[in-house]
Amino acid sequence: MTRGEDFPRWYQEVIAGAEMADNGPARGTMVIRPWGYGIWELMQAELDRRIKEAGAENAYFPLFIPESFLKLEAEHVEGFAPELAVVTHGGGKVLEEPLVVRPTSETVINSFFSKWVQSHRDLPLLINQWANVVRWELRPRLFLRTTEFLWQEGHTAHATEADAHAYALRILDDVYRSTMVDVLSIPVLTGHKTARERFAGATRTWTTEGMMGDGKALQMGTSHELGQNFSRPFDITFATAEGTTEYVWQTSWGVSTRLVGALVMGHGDDFGLRLPPALAPSQVVVLVVKDSPEVGAAAEALVAELTAAGHRVRLDARTDTSFGRRSVAWELKGVPVRVEVGPRDLAEGTVTVVTRHRREKQSVAVGAVAGTVSAILQAVGPDLLAEATAARDARTVDAASLEEATEAGSVGFARVRLAALGPDGEDRLALKALSIRCLQRPDGSLAQPGDPEDDLVAVVARSY
Amino acid sequence: MTRGEDFPRWYQEVIAGAEMADNGPARGTMVIRPWGYGIWELMQAELDRRIKEAGAENAYFPLFIPESFLKLEAEHVEGFAPELAVVTHGGGKVLEEPLVVRPTSETVINSFFSKWVQSHRDLPLLINQWANVVRWELRPRLFLRTTEFLWQEGHTAHATEADAHAYALRILDDVYRSTMVDVLSIPVLTGHKTARERFAGATRTWTTEGMMGDGKALQMGTSHELGQNFSRPFDITFATAEGTTEYVWQTSWGVSTRLVGALVMGHGDDFGLRLPPALAPSQVVVLVVKDSPEVGAAAEALVAELTAAGHRVRLDARTDTSFGRRSVAWELKGVPVRVEVGPRDLAEGTVTVVTRHRREKQSVAVGAVAGTVSAILQAVGPDLLAEATAARDARTVDAASLEEATEAGSVGFARVRLAALGPDGEDRLALKALSIRCLQRPDGSLAQPGDPEDDLVAVVARSY
Repeated sequence: MTRGEDFPRWYQEVIAGAEMADNGPARGTMVIRPWGYGIWELMQAELDRRIKEAGAENAYFPLFIPESFLKLEAEHVEGFAPELAVVTHGGGKVLEEPLVVRPTSETVINSFFSKWVQSHRDLPLLINQWANVVRWELRPRLFLRTTEFLWQEGHTAHATEADAHAYALRILDDVYRSTMVDVLSIPVLTGHKTARERFAGATRTWTTEGMMGDGKALQMGTSHELGQNFSRPFDITFATAEGTTEYVWQTSWGVSTRLVGALVMGHGDDFGLRLPPALAPSQVVVLVVKDSPEVGAAAEALVAELTAAGHRVRLDARTDTSFGRRSVAWELKGVPVRVEVGPRDLAEGTVTVVTRHRREKQSVAVGAVAGTVSAILQAVGPDLLAEATAARDARTVDAASLEEATEAGSVGFARVRLAALGPDGEDRLALKALSIRCLQRPDGSLAQPGDPEDDLVAVVARSY
Repeated sequence: MTRGEDFPRWYQEVIAGAEMADNGPARGTMVIRPWGYGIWELMQAELDRRIKEAGAENAYFPLFIPESFLKLEAEHVEGFAPELAVVTHGGGKVLEEPLVVRPTSETVINSFFSKWVQSHRDLPLLINQWANVVRWELRPRLFLRTTEFLWQEGHTAHATEADAHAYALRILDDVYRSTMVDVLSIPVLTGHKTARERFAGATRTWTTEGMMGDGKALQMGTSHELGQNFSRPFDITFATAEGTTEYVWQTSWGVSTRLVGALVMGHGDDFGLRLPPALAPSQVVVLVVKDSPEVGAAAEALVAELTAAGHRVRLDARTDTSFGRRSVAWELKGVPVRVEVGPRDLAEGTVTVVTRHRREKQSVAVGAVAGTVSAILQAVGPDLLAEATAARDARTVDAASLEEATEAGSVGFARVRLAALGPDGEDRLALKALSIRCLQRPDGSLAQPGDPEDDLVAVVARSY
């Protein structure tokens, strides 16, 4: 199955063939297999480092939230009501109050913020959590939309609106955009959501939007300004230096295992996954083509040398399976570099080095393998980013009207002035399964407080 | 509150005072605050590295398990039935089949093992998962027994019973005992459980037992041999090299956030927590005693120097809070070293270095701080281990009868020959709230297959 024939089926086949994930037994749940989980662990480490650099500390809040908590913030509960999983029985008894399995943790975290925040000295309070969350999903799709998914959710409290605003943007840029561009090698547009698309309970939702291989947009991560929408119902107040009492200003932000799906759809080709080395559980696989004492020893020596050079290396000496079959399997898994060690090449002092993302083979002298591999591994990330950027730009069109935006947005991204869409523009786009992915200034930068809405540009596209 | 006056209350006060955790809103749940979570993250990293060295790969399986899965292994479901939390509503509807929130993942993981394992080439299959699990808890206690807790659970499949046995012991020794002794600085006894105490569904449960500050035992981690108890009902078979079909042999093993509780109860003193540097989110705090430009600059220079030396260092310049109060707070949190920078000392070119675990103060020339701190940090872990080992040994008594074992086991560990307890010995111990924590050979080593039970020594104690 190629991407051009049937992109959704191609996606499913890559996920299955690369042994990344399976459907779980309960509807919409997912089993993340070691190859998929290894990618997620590497993403997590990159995100976690940046989150800590932004001053947030990790903590953990309960999975179960009393139903009454969710009702405290009206718009919030309305947004989640149809998606909730509810525990009614515990320890063999019917519970007095049902427990909701967290769809997100705003409510429970804010109930603790109200205890922990007393004085301006306690601010800013910057908390992050790595956790599983549950949102009932009727049309599940592995990694992209699953009933249970893994994510991080940040929750912060600030003394001023300006400080909350600055922090939401710091996360958007230093954590999310940086990880997506520099680590996932996926170019993302940043901007804010329209009122229709923003998170229930937020005053402003900032987003990162990537273009997938079929021209559709994927919302990859969001950073919300919550204003005082939670601090008022949850009574999170602080004593200012001047002795007055005020409500805090808040943010929340999250990215999830959806990013693994982004990686597949952003870089995959008709032969499977293509992984940036930073996210490859194995960056190099050394393949024994055919068994012999010389070949085995040479392969092991190369594994040792490449490992010592700091790469993640795997040896594949399973010569009871055909070489062709193993080679295709590693290609499908997206391992950036394959080093094929066979008796004929080796007799001439060479091995074959295969670059996955370009599917290029070269014969390399055994002594030069480490240098060649290091050079390839350095090039793959920037190559993939350049390729994805060129593909996106080729499918991005400036539109002047709703009609033009509808046409261009159906196959890629349409950039159109919000004013040109008219007052019911968003509704009319929705009828064609299109949406405004984000709003930006005409130069692509983020809107500033006070910018007139009508001067902003809307990015219109189909989306996941 | 001192440990001697009321150990359980002392424990609660340390957890609260060190800002490690709070009770969650739903019964038995726990909020792990940054200081507690930071300790857990460091433990996780140490365990995860060892688990990977033992060849296991991380994966993730669903939180929700169809109720029917749990019924496949009869003893297993009997063990967990009274502890289950059950989801009956999802997406606004009553579910056709209720979903159990995983109390452990044997059932769901084994249903996938039956798909993944086909041939002897697929074995051993070594999987680990970091996850939250839920077991309804009527008498919750932060970190020790909570309705939801965080843990890792390993699940493996092997071609032979001998291989499964060897792997269960490898995890017990290279992962669990090694982390507990070398990282947590807690000496543990290892042995196996009696039939009464072992995991429902296991053929043999290996355990690590530590002694806490009140003389009680804490089961810190277990590694189970499951025999074919799961592979038969879940139909996990493989084709041997000879072409026959056989059921796999399995293990499972886990440790949890309970280890954080072990650290508190194993090393805490009447002034709070004492952390081994390997698990201290901050290993050194540099305290500004009183503000002045010189003091501030000197403190920042020390933070930079100590950070550059590879330590985790925090600056406390919150001089709007009294020095005494801050000093007590860091002591309570168990930070191994405090460097106090004040104007009078500094005028003489010195600062005060305080070693938490010994509560020793010394005046150190500014230029010698880095060397002094490094030496202390190297000594703390071994010191704590030696202290805990001496305390345990002083409370461990060889007993010759049930009566002697009951007396000694009520205040520490009693070692007694299993044969001396008589056939109803375990029942009679239970009446006194005592149990056999583990069985060992008389020399303290692990029993070998074929050892006569009656020759083994039982370690009798009260326990958490």
